[in-house]
Formats: sequence, C-alpha cells, structure tokens
Amino acid sequence: MTAVHRPLLVTMGDAVGIGPETIVRAFLAGDLAGVVAVGDVQVLRRAAQLVLATSAPGGLRPVVALFNTLPLPAEVPEGCLPVLQPPGLPADLAGLPWGRVDARAGAAAARCIEHAVQVVQAGQAAAIVTAPIHKEALSAAGVPFPGHTEMLQHLATAPGQPPPPVRMMLANDELRVVLVTIHLSLRKAIEALDFDAVLSTLHIAHAAAARWGQPRPRIAVAGLNPHAGEGGLFGDEEVRFIAPAVQAAVAQGLNVSGPYAPDTVFMRARRGEFDIVLAMTHDHGLIPVKYRGVEQGVNVTLGLPFVRTSPDHGTAFDIAGQGRADPASLVAALRMARQLVAR
Amino acid sequence: MTAVHRPLLVTMGDAVGIGPETIVRAFLAGDLAGVVAVGDVQVLRRAAQLVLATSAPGGLRPVVALFNTLPLPAEVPEGCLPVLQPPGLPADLAGLPWGRVDARAGAAAARCIEHAVQVVQAGQAAAIVTAPIHKEALSAAGVPFPGHTEMLQHLATAPGQPPPPVRMMLANDELRVVLVTIHLSLRKAIEALDFDAVLSTLHIAHAAAARWGQPRPRIAVAGLNPHAGEGGLFGDEEVRFIAPAVQAAVAQGLNVSGPYAPDTVFMRARRGEFDIVLAMTHDHGLIPVKYRGVEQGVNVTLGLPFVRTSPDHGTAFDIAGQGRADPASLVAALRMARQLVAR
Repeated sequence: MTAVHRPLLVTMGDAVGIGPETIVRAFLAGDLAGVVAVGDVQVLRRAAQLVLATSAPGGLRPVVALFNTLPLPAEVPEGCLPVLQPPGLPADLAGLPWGRVDARAGAAAARCIEHAVQVVQAGQAAAIVTAPIHKEALSAAGVPFPGHTEMLQHLATAPGQPPPPVRMMLANDELRVVLVTIHLSLRKAIEALDFDAVLSTLHIAHAAAARWGQPRPRIAVAGLNPHAGEGGLFGDEEVRFIAPAVQAAVAQGLNVSGPYAPDTVFMRARRGEFDIVLAMTHDHGLIPVKYRGVEQGVNVTLGLPFVRTSPDHGTAFDIAGQGRADPASLVAALRMARQLVAR
Repeated sequence: MTAVHRPLLVTMGDAVGIGPETIVRAFLAGDLAGVVAVGDVQVLRRAAQLVLATSAPGGLRPVVALFNTLPLPAEVPEGCLPVLQPPGLPADLAGLPWGRVDARAGAAAARCIEHAVQVVQAGQAAAIVTAPIHKEALSAAGVPFPGHTEMLQHLATAPGQPPPPVRMMLANDELRVVLVTIHLSLRKAIEALDFDAVLSTLHIAHAAAARWGQPRPRIAVAGLNPHAGEGGLFGDEEVRFIAPAVQAAVAQGLNVSGPYAPDTVFMRARRGEFDIVLAMTHDHGLIPVKYRGVEQGVNVTLGLPFVRTSPDHGTAFDIAGQGRADPASLVAALRMARQLVAR
C-alpha cells in the first residue's frame, strides 16, 4: 500500500474550539479528499450544522459518517466526511458550551491523538494533521503534556528507549525552516546553542527530508549574529561552534553549507538555492515564513517516526461556535502533509 | 523652490568600485531624471565608455557633462548626465586601476560627500543618494570615519552641538523598518537595549516621517523575544523597558503601539496596518526587508537634517570595471529618496 492510497488523519482537537468547524469547512471546500477525521462523530455533526447555519458554500451538505474501522479513501462515498471515533471518548461532548475550558474536551482531544498515533504507527495511515488543542483543558483532564509535540514525542517512544529528539519546522510553499531553539527568551536561546544542538538539528532535518523524497537536501545554516558574525567581529558563536558543526555534518556526508548572514539566507532559499534553512532562533526562522501571511505557515514536527503537521493557530475560544473560523491554515497543513508523504 | 524642482544628488562613491558604472546604467535606464552626480567628470566618462563597450541599452550614448554650478533639472539638456565636480579632487582619478584600494579614490569619495552635504545644507538640493565607498580607501586617505553614516553625522553637526543621533532605516515598497541596534553581536545588542534606546529611536522615526509627509506615522514596536516575551515567560525585556518606552512615547503624543510578536508584526505592516516597524536587532528587521530581494532594500539614514539613502551593497571591487554591476539597488535608492522628499 503506497502513501497515496493511505488516508491522512486529522484529529478534531479541542471539541469546543475552532478545530471541528475548520475541519468541516475544509471538507466543504473540497480539501479533505483522502482524509479521515479522528474524533467524536456528534461533535463533527454539530460543527457541520453550525457551518451550514452560518454559511452554506455551494449548497453542499456534508454527510458526517461514522466508521468503526479506518476506511480506505476509495471506500468513502462522495460527499461524506468520514469519522473514525476512538473507543472511550467522554459522553455528550457535543453538548459542551463553545469556547470554555472543559476537562472532558481535553480528555477527548488527547484520546483522539493517541488513537491517531496507533493507526499511523500500524502503517494504516500516511500522516497526522492535528487541529488545535487547549493546554488548560489538557491539564484539567490530567494529561501530563503541555502540547502536541511533547505528547507525540511520548507516544512515539519505543519501549526502553529515550524519547526521539524532535525539532519544529515551519514551512510554506517557498520556505522550509527548521529551528534549533524555540520557546526561550533570546538570552536563553543564545545560551542553549552549542555544537551538539546545531549538529543534531542538522541530522534531524536531513533524516526527515528523506521521508519526503529528498535523500540529500541542500541545507543552509543561518548564523546567529549580524553578517554571521563577520569573522568574529560581531559575535563568536559562528566561529566557536556553528561553522564547526557545519563542517562535522559535511564530513558525515550531509549536504550542508553556511553559516550565512541571517538577513539574506532566507531570500536565497526562496529563490531556490537551498531546500531547508536552519535558524538558530524562533524569530529568525519564523519572521520570513510568516511574512507572506500566517495562514500559509504550517508547523511540522521533525524527528517523529511519522509525518505530523498542524495549522499555525490555536483553539481561538473567542470565536469558536460562531462559524467565522478560517480553515486556510488547516488546509495548508493538509496540503503540506500530502507533500511530505508524497514519495 | 519646492522639493520636486530641486535636484537629487548622487555621490560617485569610490572611483574604482562599481559606483560610477551603476550611476551611468541608472541614467541609461532613464532613472536619473532630476539627478545630478557629484563626482569627477573623467571618472564618470570612463564609466560611460565602459558601459557602452559592454552593453549599449537602446543605443543611447550618454553625454557626461561637467557643470561648474549646480544646474536645476530644467537646465540639463536631454540625454545629458550632469556632473557637479567638487574643487580639490585628486588628479588622474580616471587612470586608477579598477578594484584596488587607493588613497586617492578614498580622498575623492570623501570630498564628494562633503561637497554634497554643503549643497544640500544650503537648500539647493533635495536629498543625497550615496554610491558605495570603501573603508580601507577612506582610511588610507586619512579620513577619520569608517563609513558614510559617521561622516554624514559629523558633517551635519551644528557648531557647538553634539552630533545628531541617527538610526538606520531599511525600506522597500512594502516595509519601512527602523533598527534600534545594528552592528553588534546578538548578545551585545541585547545588552545595549534599554528604555532610552527604544524611546529615542521612536522619536527619531517619528520626526523623520514628518519630512516625508506623515506627521503622525503609525509606528509598531516589535518585541525582542519570541511572542514578545509572552507576559514575561520568555524573557522580561518587553515588560521591563520596551512596553514602558511605548507608553512613554504615547504619553508624548506619538502614534506608537506594541510590543508585538516579532514573527507577525512585519507581515501586519506589509498588509498596511503600520507605517513603520521598530526592530530591536539587525536581523529581526533586515530579514523581512530583504526577503523579497536584497536589490529592493534601501538604506536610509534617519536623524540627519536632510534625506540620505544608499543602495544596500558595497563597492564590489571583484566585479568593478567589468560592466556587470546591477544598478537595481541604486535605482531603488533614488526612488526612495524621491518618495521621502515628496511632500
């Protein structure tokens, strides 16, 4: 069974956030071909009613259909949004008020992720796209992970092994940027950088690219300092460990170059000179990816044994249940997942 | 005499770099209307011969004409590139070999800048666009300034006054970004930031905008840390002094907001929400401006008593004299100078 014949999974996320309605909207826009939602069928039916009540694009009425086992894309009737419902979901999720932290929604979101990982690890699905979850709801449900990344890392850990090291990639049609550091103050990010952090990120990016059909991606490493330090004049991190990590990676057979001046390397990648750019800090990497529009930036977790993408927004409790949520970022995440499994 | 009737000045830069040939190419492309070159007439004639020998776009032959006093645009015959030659230039500049550091070229470059400042300070010209100079050539000539900015700042200092504080703005058609720190390592840039640095940059940006016809520009302040610190979770610079500086500026009547997450504020400015973005570091600001293409990013010095722009490249000694230099960035700098004086 090749990748294209296996479905993509989209987890419903927090039942009272904008996840379910963005899934229905993406379906109505024709962007869910070959996708199976992992969630509560009543929650997705409520979302379908909401979307139809607030706007009915093209007059389509989605049939939200429950499947007990994962259907192949060919087995899903046209106009039908297939839902794989994990066993053990809390009852009456579709009766919860929109936009309020609820332990039951948190527990259900976690259960859907667990189930999706089981299915994809069994080789039955090609990738997982995750609709947004809410940290407080997870916490209220006693789920010991602050977010998707940590939970997926835990679920992907082989028995007796340490968790796989993961990195965040932000990608759009023009750029694929892998971050060495993420949610740290800029001071702490500088402290966290060293030879091993750079070299391990290079290996994770290199290995991930093989999965999407680039066995030897051209990886550019952005420096940390202005002009990549200008030979030590504006900072020594490039000289001390970034350039040595690049050299080590090259010696190990990777197609890596740099460090390059941060202010021009992303433009060069956009023009096709590189496949992936490694950025030392959150904002060096995210500023160029988001510059064209946040809704086009897709979050990809590298280092897991499967492809995982997500839209780059949260549960948006403030607008959930109003039929106003924009599915563009979810659609972009689905497209990116398709690209990343299309070998 | 209004701004549009006064010429723009373009200084020739280092005589053996790519400055003179980019000036001739911009002229042949029709982009020098209303512009007077400040330089050595023989150097510009050599550049014109070079450009004609290597390519003759449209078959035009520029007449490089010496003017002893600054001509008004209406006084310049069609097809004529007017050159205002400062007194006291070294002899035989047009005989120097291309692309080699020479004290005479450094002295001439400095003399042209001095003369251009005299003319613009006398109110006879609207703005100065500077072709690139070479630090080593300036140094060899005994010029005590490492670059344009320091030299212009010195020349603009009123007797008995401290030099005017200046800031670098990088701008293209989509974005105007003013930098609080520039050529420092990222560590030192963080150390250099404080309440006064942010507030004074806000005032310089605000005052400069009045000159280009925006008396109350909408200035967005980008934070330093991911998510602008997320309330102190990822760094406290926003809480300690960036937000207080924004509040102080607002209390002083400026139209300032922020601090915003660095990864989305530039995209928001691109879409029209803000007129100017203040960036804390060199690369937070320059990555988005250069993302569309370095040749579109124009360097503007704010804080001087006149408009000064420059192309965002150097003397390129490695290709000088070969007729291969791209005038795009110089053309962008000329266009930006026109915009900035068009009240």
